[in-house]
Amino acid sequence: MRKCVELSKYIPGKSIEEVKREYGLEKVVKLASNENPYGPSPKAIEAFRSYSDLHIYPNPDYRELREKISEYTGWDVERIVVGAGIDGILETLFKILIDEGDEVIIPIPSFPYYHILTRLSCGKEVIVRRGKNYQIDESIFEAINKKTKLILICNPNNPTGNAEKAEIIEEIVQSTDGIVFIDEAYVEFSDFAVDMDAENVVIARTFSKAFGLANLRIGYALLPKWFVSPFKAAMTPFPISTPAARAAEAAIDDIEWMRKCVEKIKAERERLYRELKRCVEVTPSKANFLFFESPVENLAEELLKRGVIVRDCSNFAGCKNHIRVTVGKPEENDMFLQALKEVLEC
Amino acid sequence: MRKCVELSKYIPGKSIEEVKREYGLEKVVKLASNENPYGPSPKAIEAFRSYSDLHIYPNPDYRELREKISEYTGWDVERIVVGAGIDGILETLFKILIDEGDEVIIPIPSFPYYHILTRLSCGKEVIVRRGKNYQIDESIFEAINKKTKLILICNPNNPTGNAEKAEIIEEIVQSTDGIVFIDEAYVEFSDFAVDMDAENVVIARTFSKAFGLANLRIGYALLPKWFVSPFKAAMTPFPISTPAARAAEAAIDDIEWMRKCVEKIKAERERLYRELKRCVEVTPSKANFLFFESPVENLAEELLKRGVIVRDCSNFAGCKNHIRVTVGKPEENDMFLQALKEVLEC
Repeated sequence: MRKCVELSKYIPGKSIEEVKREYGLEKVVKLASNENPYGPSPKAIEAFRSYSDLHIYPNPDYRELREKISEYTGWDVERIVVGAGIDGILETLFKILIDEGDEVIIPIPSFPYYHILTRLSCGKEVIVRRGKNYQIDESIFEAINKKTKLILICNPNNPTGNAEKAEIIEEIVQSTDGIVFIDEAYVEFSDFAVDMDAENVVIARTFSKAFGLANLRIGYALLPKWFVSPFKAAMTPFPISTPAARAAEAAIDDIEWMRKCVEKIKAERERLYRELKRCVEVTPSKANFLFFESPVENLAEELLKRGVIVRDCSNFAGCKNHIRVTVGKPEENDMFLQALKEVLEC
Repeated sequence: MRKCVELSKYIPGKSIEEVKREYGLEKVVKLASNENPYGPSPKAIEAFRSYSDLHIYPNPDYRELREKISEYTGWDVERIVVGAGIDGILETLFKILIDEGDEVIIPIPSFPYYHILTRLSCGKEVIVRRGKNYQIDESIFEAINKKTKLILICNPNNPTGNAEKAEIIEEIVQSTDGIVFIDEAYVEFSDFAVDMDAENVVIARTFSKAFGLANLRIGYALLPKWFVSPFKAAMTPFPISTPAARAAEAAIDDIEWMRKCVEKIKAERERLYRELKRCVEVTPSKANFLFFESPVENLAEELLKRGVIVRDCSNFAGCKNHIRVTVGKPEENDMFLQALKEVLEC
């Protein structure tokens, strides 16, 4: 086995069924994976079901899907690539870029998969602590040097929910020859998207969050032109099934559905924020989840006992007793709030 | 970019639509990707369509699917892992095993993705020519040494179609500390499956071929016990969507459908073999395709002009003017035979 592949023990998360069984509960809600509780457009489900040539390999060009994405984002179709979620895009990026000892900058706390991929590719993790309100500050520039191959910026950031200012991202892009990867998984819930075109910027998005297609793992990215050919040569040949691609295309055609979901989720996010603020110190969020430090150590487990699954962030780099809770439907959020108030007596 | 990532130019294959357009044809058949022309069990399609919680991430344990696979193969469920096709299994394997300069033995000709992954992981490709009837012979033992980390054995072999004898595989397994990867993508068309349990053997299979689910990319493997935990830690978290997993489960429940497809394909394979033998030197096949050396250089293109897409193997390591043709439905095979006879005047 490669020496850089640490044998991190594999710990699967708990499913709703397991929590029901373990705690003898009838009702369990899962607010742990930042899913859209309203699901995808019914037209996307219909498109997904209408494809039945399951015995034929997908066309690896994914032209129709890339054209729809281009329509939605305004990006050049020739510079759009697709992957099995943003995870898939990142896996290819690491494969192309990171040799043993190459430096990968991660402003923490951020998405745990960044750390896993860095380790698996034998890269050197360079940790930068976020500043006030978890925003990236000037200290990142001390970390950038000639060995910097990749800088991972999640915007809005998972798990903290904050968005960055355009200026700092522009400054980072200009200060490095490495690739700046901007992970916009939650961009639809925000009011700011990076609009930047540089030879070292990759912007990635997904159909897993606002579009409600998490199960199908459909990610995409805008690459600089020179990077398209190596990316296609290194990517897995068929990252997305044809029915999944059709679902994503239909989801873009019914963009109103997604926008309505986002409006409902944003309204609930603000309500949840106000309620949470009475009990804990919560970070303002531009995504579909909220982040706070728990005053007690075992909050996630206490919530589990009460049928609410949230994301325990205590093993995220840069976190302590932090919790990330997805904004669900009003009744789900109420169930969470009630359980929280019970545990924290607030 | 990593120096070992050669900038192989990305050349997408031609789809039926493109061939129709380019050559002004009304009828085009594709016998290039070893798909099952009869498709999956209708029950698999039904199961695929019945899942509609597309907004929820799959359960990363894939327990139900692994249990069904265990039922079908007789393998220990705890040692079964799943991936996005055998490609996905291989990608994880390379990630765990191959450091710069580690040796990967490939008996050629074989599946081109083996070469691509070796290059992308900075491994050292060790090529061994196959012997008589493309079977692996004693010369492979000269290639095995302390730096051997992985030996890739496709059985039956793609693109040649031959199967190996159990003895040689056993001897290879015993002669190395590296992992011996046995790719049984086409095992259902063969009459021999490796039945071997050793600490350095990984056996991989797929739902893409006999089960007719190529579009959904569902692969699986039997790992030695010690290798399960690192594999799960290194694999992509959600390689298979829930509807795809459900389709695979239903396909196993309706095993008779698969067996009937295999019988029809095997009968056609023997007919096609006899017909081809009159014109070219064709290798006996244990898979759902046939392999032969063309007496003319541009056969694949000449067949394209006549509406038949086959796999031109001229850029496969160890091949010259070789062609691989998938066994299709009788009428598709007739169309291929007619076009071939026209071009070769035989």
